[in-house]
Amino acid sequence: MAPSFYETLVERNKQYAETHNPAPTIAEQMALGRVFETTLVITCVDFRLNPDQFLQTKPEDQFLISRNPAGRVGPALQEIMLFDVFLGLKRVIVIHHTDCGGSQFKDADIREAHKSRLPDHSEIDHMVFGAFDEVEQSVRDDLHLLKTSPYVPKRISDQSLGFVYDIKTGLLTPVE
Amino acid sequence: MAPSFYETLVERNKQYAETHNPAPTIAEQMALGRVFETTLVITCVDFRLNPDQFLQTKPEDQFLISRNPAGRVGPALQEIMLFDVFLGLKRVIVIHHTDCGGSQFKDADIREAHKSRLPDHSEIDHMVFGAFDEVEQSVRDDLHLLKTSPYVPKRISDQSLGFVYDIKTGLLTPVE
Repeated sequence: MAPSFYETLVERNKQYAETHNPAPTIAEQMALGRVFETTLVITCVDFRLNPDQFLQTKPEDQFLISRNPAGRVGPALQEIMLFDVFLGLKRVIVIHHTDCGGSQFKDADIREAHKSRLPDHSEIDHMVFGAFDEVEQSVRDDLHLLKTSPYVPKRISDQSLGFVYDIKTGLLTPVE
Repeated sequence: MAPSFYETLVERNKQYAETHNPAPTIAEQMALGRVFETTLVITCVDFRLNPDQFLQTKPEDQFLISRNPAGRVGPALQEIMLFDVFLGLKRVIVIHHTDCGGSQFKDADIREAHKSRLPDHSEIDHMVFGAFDEVEQSVRDDLHLLKTSPYVPKRISDQSLGFVYDIKTGLLTPVE
């Protein structure tokens, strides 16, 4: 019998664990006198993206990777507030990508589909799902949001960067 | 002079791109007759976690990786609504981890820190930042939320799974 989804998942994870490199606990890091100085990367959930790979992250970089549909800053504003206070947030990097699903649906259509199932839930009328028209502009819009939101201190928004990731070439292009 | 943060980032990405394996566009996938049947993995932004690595994901798995502080389901409910309609969402996997920062801060402290800076922003009083007391219980709580939220259709919540990832061993332990 073919292995189930669950069995495949657990088996792959066991294989991974054989060469797993254990990370220090937060207490161990602090005992070593290591100060947290984190970078929050906000990018898309798309299964064609592997940000740890295309950024070649190393644990000592302290790159927190936040992922939501399209990689929008709006849903991540509270994370920025949290990490500003809790994990020494230094900067934010916004990375949207070419051929993103975010440009292929409309928020209104998603609302409509759920309203037909849940007609009494009027709060759905106000839901935003992250759709955008043009990928460079969506990065610009999100950088603007970082710079104008009262929730983001200037020392963090001043260090923010924006990029478009090309799924065909694997390259990041900066967005001014 | 040492390379700047920006230069290091771009240089590492260029190195990655040399062996980048281009992914098909959504249009190319659909032309091949490939139906979207996605799995949404919800996990933490922690820099000690590399979910694509510990799950040994393959592009054909169509694992959408959503990451927020602690990997809570609450902030991801709208994503589930989106992917239910837009990308053929089949199941949700919740993965919290040992030594998570989520158990080391209190939502009230984060609110307090921002209220002292933004005293006129009373909406901060209602903000939730994802803190929890115990990691297995937080997975259980989030599985319960999946099963009881009106936004999540039963065919999806019935397929949901929960795990704790151990940062020391790299292993996933299922949570019932």
